[in-house]
Amino acid sequence: MPDASPQKWHLAHTSWFFETLVISRSADAGYRSPDPRYRHLFNSYYQGIGTPYPRPQRGLLTRPTLAEVLAWRTHVDAAMLRIIDNGAADAALVELGLQHEQQHQELMRTDLLALMALNPLRPALQEPVVHPGAALASSAIRTAADAPAWLAVPGGVTRIGHTGEGFCFDNELPAHQVLVAPFEIARSLVTQRDYLAFIDDGGYRNPHWWLAEGWDWLNAARRSAPQSPVPQSSALQSFDPQSSGPQSFGPQYWRHDDATGWWRYGLDGEHPVRHADGYRPSAESTAEIDTELARPIAHLCYYEADAYARWAGARLPTEQEWETAARELGDKLDALFGDCWQWTASAYAAYPGFRPLAGEAGEYNGKFMLNQQVLRGSSCYTPSGHARISYRNFFPAYASWQRSGLRLAR
Amino acid sequence: MPDASPQKWHLAHTSWFFETLVISRSADAGYRSPDPRYRHLFNSYYQGIGTPYPRPQRGLLTRPTLAEVLAWRTHVDAAMLRIIDNGAADAALVELGLQHEQQHQELMRTDLLALMALNPLRPALQEPVVHPGAALASSAIRTAADAPAWLAVPGGVTRIGHTGEGFCFDNELPAHQVLVAPFEIARSLVTQRDYLAFIDDGGYRNPHWWLAEGWDWLNAARRSAPQSPVPQSSALQSFDPQSSGPQSFGPQYWRHDDATGWWRYGLDGEHPVRHADGYRPSAESTAEIDTELARPIAHLCYYEADAYARWAGARLPTEQEWETAARELGDKLDALFGDCWQWTASAYAAYPGFRPLAGEAGEYNGKFMLNQQVLRGSSCYTPSGHARISYRNFFPAYASWQRSGLRLAR
Amino acid sequence: MPDASPQKWHLAHTSWFFETLVISRSADAGYRSPDPRYRHLFNSYYQGIGTPYPRPQRGLLTRPTLAEVLAWRTHVDAAMLRIIDNGAADAALVELGLQHEQQHQELMRTDLLALMALNPLRPALQEPVVHPGAALASSAIRTAADAPAWLAVPGGVTRIGHTGEGFCFDNELPAHQVLVAPFEIARSLVTQRDYLAFIDDGGYRNPHWWLAEGWDWLNAARRSAPQSPVPQSSALQSFDPQSSGPQSFGPQYWRHDDATGWWRYGLDGEHPVRHADGYRPSAESTAEIDTELARPIAHLCYYEADAYARWAGARLPTEQEWETAARELGDKLDALFGDCWQWTASAYAAYPGFRPLAGEAGEYNGKFMLNQQVLRGSSCYTPSGHARISYRNFFPAYASWQRSGLRLAR
Amino acid sequence: MPDASPQKWHLAHTSWFFETLVISRSADAGYRSPDPRYRHLFNSYYQGIGTPYPRPQRGLLTRPTLAEVLAWRTHVDAAMLRIIDNGAADAALVELGLQHEQQHQELMRTDLLALMALNPLRPALQEPVVHPGAALASSAIRTAADAPAWLAVPGGVTRIGHTGEGFCFDNELPAHQVLVAPFEIARSLVTQRDYLAFIDDGGYRNPHWWLAEGWDWLNAARRSAPQSPVPQSSALQSFDPQSSGPQSFGPQYWRHDDATGWWRYGLDGEHPVRHADGYRPSAESTAEIDTELARPIAHLCYYEADAYARWAGARLPTEQEWETAARELGDKLDALFGDCWQWTASAYAAYPGFRPLAGEAGEYNGKFMLNQQVLRGSSCYTPSGHARISYRNFFPAYASWQRSGLRLAR
Repeated sequence: MPDASPQKWHLAHTSWFFETLVISRSADAGYRSPDPRYRHLFNSYYQGIGTPYPRPQRGLLTRPTLAEVLAWRTHVDAAMLRIIDNGAADAALVELGLQHEQQHQELMRTDLLALMALNPLRPALQEPVVHPGAALASSAIRTAADAPAWLAVPGGVTRIGHTGEGFCFDNELPAHQVLVAPFEIARSLVTQRDYLAFIDDGGYRNPHWWLAEGWDWLNAARRSAPQSPVPQSSALQSFDPQSSGPQSFGPQYWRHDDATGWWRYGLDGEHPVRHADGYRPSAESTAEIDTELARPIAHLCYYEADAYARWAGARLPTEQEWETAARELGDKLDALFGDCWQWTASAYAAYPGFRPLAGEAGEYNGKFMLNQQVLRGSSCYTPSGHARISYRNFFPAYASWQRSGLRLAR
Repeated sequence: MPDASPQKWHLAHTSWFFETLVISRSADAGYRSPDPRYRHLFNSYYQGIGTPYPRPQRGLLTRPTLAEVLAWRTHVDAAMLRIIDNGAADAALVELGLQHEQQHQELMRTDLLALMALNPLRPALQEPVVHPGAALASSAIRTAADAPAWLAVPGGVTRIGHTGEGFCFDNELPAHQVLVAPFEIARSLVTQRDYLAFIDDGGYRNPHWWLAEGWDWLNAARRSAPQSPVPQSSALQSFDPQSSGPQSFGPQYWRHDDATGWWRYGLDGEHPVRHADGYRPSAESTAEIDTELARPIAHLCYYEADAYARWAGARLPTEQEWETAARELGDKLDALFGDCWQWTASAYAAYPGFRPLAGEAGEYNGKFMLNQQVLRGSSCYTPSGHARISYRNFFPAYASWQRSGLRLAR
Repeated sequence: MPDASPQKWHLAHTSWFFETLVISRSADAGYRSPDPRYRHLFNSYYQGIGTPYPRPQRGLLTRPTLAEVLAWRTHVDAAMLRIIDNGAADAALVELGLQHEQQHQELMRTDLLALMALNPLRPALQEPVVHPGAALASSAIRTAADAPAWLAVPGGVTRIGHTGEGFCFDNELPAHQVLVAPFEIARSLVTQRDYLAFIDDGGYRNPHWWLAEGWDWLNAARRSAPQSPVPQSSALQSFDPQSSGPQSFGPQYWRHDDATGWWRYGLDGEHPVRHADGYRPSAESTAEIDTELARPIAHLCYYEADAYARWAGARLPTEQEWETAARELGDKLDALFGDCWQWTASAYAAYPGFRPLAGEAGEYNGKFMLNQQVLRGSSCYTPSGHARISYRNFFPAYASWQRSGLRLAR
Repeated sequence: MPDASPQKWHLAHTSWFFETLVISRSADAGYRSPDPRYRHLFNSYYQGIGTPYPRPQRGLLTRPTLAEVLAWRTHVDAAMLRIIDNGAADAALVELGLQHEQQHQELMRTDLLALMALNPLRPALQEPVVHPGAALASSAIRTAADAPAWLAVPGGVTRIGHTGEGFCFDNELPAHQVLVAPFEIARSLVTQRDYLAFIDDGGYRNPHWWLAEGWDWLNAARRSAPQSPVPQSSALQSFDPQSSGPQSFGPQYWRHDDATGWWRYGLDGEHPVRHADGYRPSAESTAEIDTELARPIAHLCYYEADAYARWAGARLPTEQEWETAARELGDKLDALFGDCWQWTASAYAAYPGFRPLAGEAGEYNGKFMLNQQVLRGSSCYTPSGHARISYRNFFPAYASWQRSGLRLAR
């Protein structure tokens, strides 16, 4: 999965960020990198610092070893403490480095999931550190009969973007006024039960629901899915290495097996979503399904989220609507943060008057403002304290390896 | 060039549109298609009508012959007149069919140019039907010394979108209010002289000016450009078949030759933009350069337009700004229409409350609302009467085979 | 189909060959090319003459027009006659130019077939100039019950390669001795009836019969074949534009339709090979099938010919065996020439002591001696007089657009 | 590098071979695999056993862990000893399993080298287990002034292939007679000094020396090589991650640096081959160059070996010539074994009367007999006792990650 990186790379790259963008900019004459070549090796995408080492080859770097990377971090940490104590550090850059590290803490989880999902053994972590759906109050678990509850927002001229003292990224600025027409927004996220109804209705087979680019994406995914000209035993089939790749007929990390039904894979292993007719699950497994179905659907790409919304007779909110609703409705909205990122209908673009940060940090956000869609909220993998109401996450429409779901608007 | 189609295909497809979306929807029992298989062959992208014949293979259709396609058109025209006379025609669909044909009239020019540009012989049409730059009043020709004149727009709540009686596409509706901050817009379009200054300043070699996706596009283009390990005579070099492909160091249809300089290719043949040092042009050729440089730069992709604007210390206007300026400043703006389409900073998205047309015509515009940028205005290839102030053209960021230029804002 | 070229290109390229390799090498000071740029445009693959115009773009050359190409030929013909009359021509090069033209006469047929086969209208030429199977004596038509007749060849030290006065290509030289073990060879070619039995036995679904590279090719072909997620009417299905592309379950230019059966497409249109159960063909159509089945299977790639031979408990002959059998058995072998080229088990390689022609003509054959397989005999598209017993045709293993079939050995 | 596999995969796959092809075929009712899914995961290419796990994804298998793989091996070893003691083992399959493991011992070295070479840090193993060039007697080291010594072989009818009691692979059988014309063969291998002369003479820039497919390969490699539009410091340049990829202007694992010269990378780190003008190496480094240049050139692909031979006015021997010379000249030929594999002009094909092994082992060799070239001899990475005079190694023409060099013939 070319978008994902090894855990060791994340460890090295966050050290790189502190070394290259913080320590090197400080008056700390004593600092020496353990290896000046790391400056190239662990540059993610900063052209101003030199041509980065190619992303798809990150997994090939068996050197430096994990021990060397950890030793580097100790070295960098010591230097950071020194320049902070000295007063030599630029406080804004230190803060940026910490926020950057929090982003990579989340990526380490989603990249690990992407890697494990490619393994036909479907390994489960012994003790899942985060439980998907944990952010949901028990009252928020929607049962099958529920229709989504719609909450009205009156609209008008409203302010969006970051204000106040705390940290924010440059792309959340400047706060500015927008004119929003009245709209309604769903109290809760779309659940796995809801999404299964879309699949059951032939949602993946009807071009009517899909954007043209989404339909092309879907057909290309179907084409690259494995085909088994030689009949295989069902035992082998269930270990097909590519079946958790781009899905033809269901979302990322879901798998369909004629004999047993639909399964969802996560860092906590594989869990049933639907038992096939004739399959005899344990009572425990049946009980698990109810809990599972009530949880939000996640790991959708934008094409799927958009198609689902159209099928459901609704649409995705714009990011202006999302932020306005979040400010005005607050706790009346369920799972704004902490379960899954929520796709919006908004293309990622500069706010009026946007100015990138000075220096190399100016490449952090601004240069990606094309052909990406904004997601709002946060996920169960987002570090505590990292989320906020004006936060703008962004990914290309095909991306589904982040924990991305949706909330409807109309 | 996979986005372009042969002239014969355009002829057939516009007949297809009338036959499939207009005549077939009318109570004209007597109509029979000359060949029911044309319904598949000349479907452009309407999934509701069946899987379309693949676009990149359109050039392979040596059958039906041109004579058969023209006979089909005569047949369709007769049926159209009959149902219009009968009152059996849906007037809105007839109008849509005519507007659709006008769009293809423009595409026939730009597709012809794309085809001819691949020919190392650089053929010129005997009598260019349209002269690029014709829309410019003579007063509008900018000489080298001119800085762009900036015109201020106060902003505020303003209405955009189509209103009134005349035809518009569904994507121009509904008209709605937006809040626009005060801004300035350039009176005139960016010229070839302006753009040459960007090239001369190393614009194509400095990642600082480019969106990340644009820089990747540029490097991929450079990589696919031809490399000549065997030294070639300059005579051969000047006919390199791929040198008018995606350009490494200059815009589409421009060509650089060390011995002679920069050249622009168009349907009117090849014209000098810059003479190389040591090259001895005729007096006529030198005179031609001045005229050439004063004309708007065209056939830029979005990446180039955006990079140029950033280099020039400005930005592209949003489509809301463009339309507001056009409504408020009117004739004070030069070449709003009739020279080249103008890229805007706006991603192509649904207006609030947008509803696609009913039936198959609903696929006309709405399903493309992702990962495309809006262009406003019209070009010298646009049929007279087809342009309007609320018109939204849209292409992906890499597209440069349309006559697309830019007007700066700040 | 990137291996095929337009008819106009063949016309131009054969003129190019005479102009560039024959006239330009002669002392005919008076000759001037109508356009020196043709030297680049119509160079097929002679690196010594300059970088050739890219093959896949030949179809885009709408200029020079057909009239201009024909005028060029008249001009070249006049010059050829002049230098022949003058005695200025190199007789060997004139002969090579004529043989080269004969090769392109054959390619014009197979390239035309490849082009027409991509057209969902499945056009038939009004008057097929050559009738596939014409070379078969009526006695050679094999009925269903026939097993192939095996003819024994004693082997030993034998001479292969060209000897004597007549023309041959450089790759047929030098004639040399080889040691061939005793073997048997089939009197007749494998028929369409034979091949259908392989398909019926699941030949395309069992990796046991296939070379590893062939199995990969087959799976890649299956993957790129169209998939129809939206149910289609059978009427549309029968015009699927890609169904004559690389076949998943049958040879090139064959098409399977559940309702009607198996069809073979050729320049003479589409003909039934097998009627589906429940389909009611005319008596005439049924009669046609018997004739069709008795004809040799053609347009197989090497992977298919090799897999078929293994399934049939036999193998392909080496080119040494083929030539030895042809010399020793002569008329006892059916359809040695004139129906289809016959794949051999031999990789295309230099004969011991091989020397390419001097000068640019040295690129004619020698530089292709890697990763190609030799075919022997000739096809019904080969010009009369062009075939001979030492002739070595060669194509890569995936090629099936030539009329290539097989004769078994063991 | 998709042809290479991780070390852990080799460990697992050799266990897989014993478990699947040896133990499972024996009457050892008591054996149970630790995980039946390994049968799929570690299948290399045996279609008869099921669809293999895709080769390019082998590096993604972080589970089973190294400890689990080693435990599996202990388990397999115990079972092997049991069935050998029991007399339940098929001795031929046990031997095949051991020979198979020896082949993977060699691949572990070359795959490790391929992986390390992608690392810009250019790591060197602490204690190189094998020293390239070790097989050369000191008398065999050629100095610059030496011309290659040619040894004559009279030719005639000669026997090639394996005879006698010892083990051989199925592709070495049956031994058979061939007719070989008289030829000469070089006493020693082509050295790095020899090859540098080819580079210096513009060998990589002149299509005259190259097969058509080789020239295309070379241009594609040049095209995919990195391009640096932004000027880089020479320090960074020397760590360019792709510079040991497919080389534009030199062989695999060679690197050219304007400031310092030519370098060869190996498991023993980077060593100078040529110092640049103006570079001031140490006396030790200069001394090292002489030793280095006298060693055989290795890691050439077939295209390069073939081009070099043509440039040198010679050719590659056929495999029949190589084996005949080896049998007749014996010790008069230097480094027949133990330094590098030697490309031959022979395509890999079945010997007359070839029969693949029965059962699944039949896929070991036979199905690869197309579009590969034979190499003879052995390399310094080949386990002791694994080489023999009739051994046929084979790789596709583009492969250069094996230690493949050449010996000239004429």
